[in-house]
Amino acid sequence: MSPPAAAMNVERQLLLSEIAEFNAAYAHCIDDDQLEQWPEFFAEDCEYQIIPRENVDLGLPAAIVFCDNRGMLIDRVVALRKANIYPAHYSRHVLGAPVLLDADGRGLHSQTSYVLMLTRMDGETRLFSAGKYVDVMVRIDTLLVTPI
Amino acid sequence: MSPPAAAMNVERQLLLSEIAEFNAAYAHCIDDDQLEQWPEFFAEDCEYQIIPRENVDLGLPAAIVFCDNRGMLIDRVVALRKANIYPAHYSRHVLGAPVLLDADGRGLHSQTSYVLMLTRMDGETRLFSAGKYVDVMVRIDTLLVTPI
Amino acid sequence: MSPPAAAMNVERQLLLSEIAEFNAAYAHCIDDDQLEQWPEFFAEDCEYQIIPRENVDLGLPAAIVFCDNRGMLIDRVVALRKANIYPAHYSRHVLGAPVLLDADGRGLHSQTSYVLMLTRMDGETRLFSAGKYVDVMVRIDTLLVTPI
Repeated sequence: MSPPAAAMNVERQLLLSEIAEFNAAYAHCIDDDQLEQWPEFFAEDCEYQIIPRENVDLGLPAAIVFCDNRGMLIDRVVALRKANIYPAHYSRHVLGAPVLLDADGRGLHSQTSYVLMLTRMDGETRLFSAGKYVDVMVRIDTLLVTPI
Repeated sequence: MSPPAAAMNVERQLLLSEIAEFNAAYAHCIDDDQLEQWPEFFAEDCEYQIIPRENVDLGLPAAIVFCDNRGMLIDRVVALRKANIYPAHYSRHVLGAPVLLDADGRGLHSQTSYVLMLTRMDGETRLFSAGKYVDVMVRIDTLLVTPI
Repeated sequence: MSPPAAAMNVERQLLLSEIAEFNAAYAHCIDDDQLEQWPEFFAEDCEYQIIPRENVDLGLPAAIVFCDNRGMLIDRVVALRKANIYPAHYSRHVLGAPVLLDADGRGLHSQTSYVLMLTRMDGETRLFSAGKYVDVMVRIDTLLVTPI
């Protein structure tokens, strides 16, 4: 590679590494049941959606969860804590390496595959969900994320 | 570390990061059902085999899938598309970080663990396969791979 | 980022990449049934514990496995080999990216999520365990690890 190409590659790999670190910290936050910290991974004007794969493929925008600011995420945690004082299960996320898709005025676009396991209090671990994060990330002091 | 050792380490970690990015893009290509792009991840004179673990351990070279050039991979995709117009399930790969084993005249030798989940149209996700990629990678303009 | 901050970030990402490489090699060592090499991933005066999540959350230190030096790890492998000449199953670990928590006099503190699958000789693969490694790593010539 020519020097500028090499420098660009170094920059790109650093960025991927930072995104991987951010994603891993995000997943540990949930798995460690530190849900009160979870909204802090998002920008104030974030967008958080969970969309079933069938809907994505059919071009249907219907999300089963839709939040379009950080306050809604905080509300979700409060509601969850009220409904369940103690967790009924432990969660464990394992994430693949991120892929950098694009960078534009909105931020860095990346996607990351995940598998989510739940372990019940009786010790049984089962596969709960597998899918991908489709993220737009912006840097605000520290790195913040806007999953879509 | 002395400066040359430190520089070699930087080079090595950059390479690992590039391989992780390549592997992640490879897995997304399949999971996003972009199978027509899948052969482009391989060199023209690639070798692609799927070998059960028992055979590997017994020193038996019998592969359940064997392709020794990119054209055969293209044929596989065409056959698959003819047999199944719509996918009967969604796949999701989650890959671990790659390990760099060796670098020789054939290319970079690396291996990477994976878990593959399938989700049926009724929504049930199950563990389908777990194993490792044993890869020889060569750089052709962009990074290309020859899984063995 | 200012130049020193940028340099610190590069240093951090390199470290994370080295830990990811180390962890991946550690997992392959087990999955490839190279158990005799497994203790070499630990420092002489290491500590190795497997603690159920319930105990961690309740602040109970009771570990189901506890070894506080490398010799005990070697003994474990010898005992395992005597009990089982041939493996009754294959294992496969897939690990997420590590998170760097702290660095102090004891070493680098990191944690890494994992999922462990077992495949029986009849070919059935099942989810066996999901959890996280909580590691203290020290550099001795090469990078060594002390999982806690």
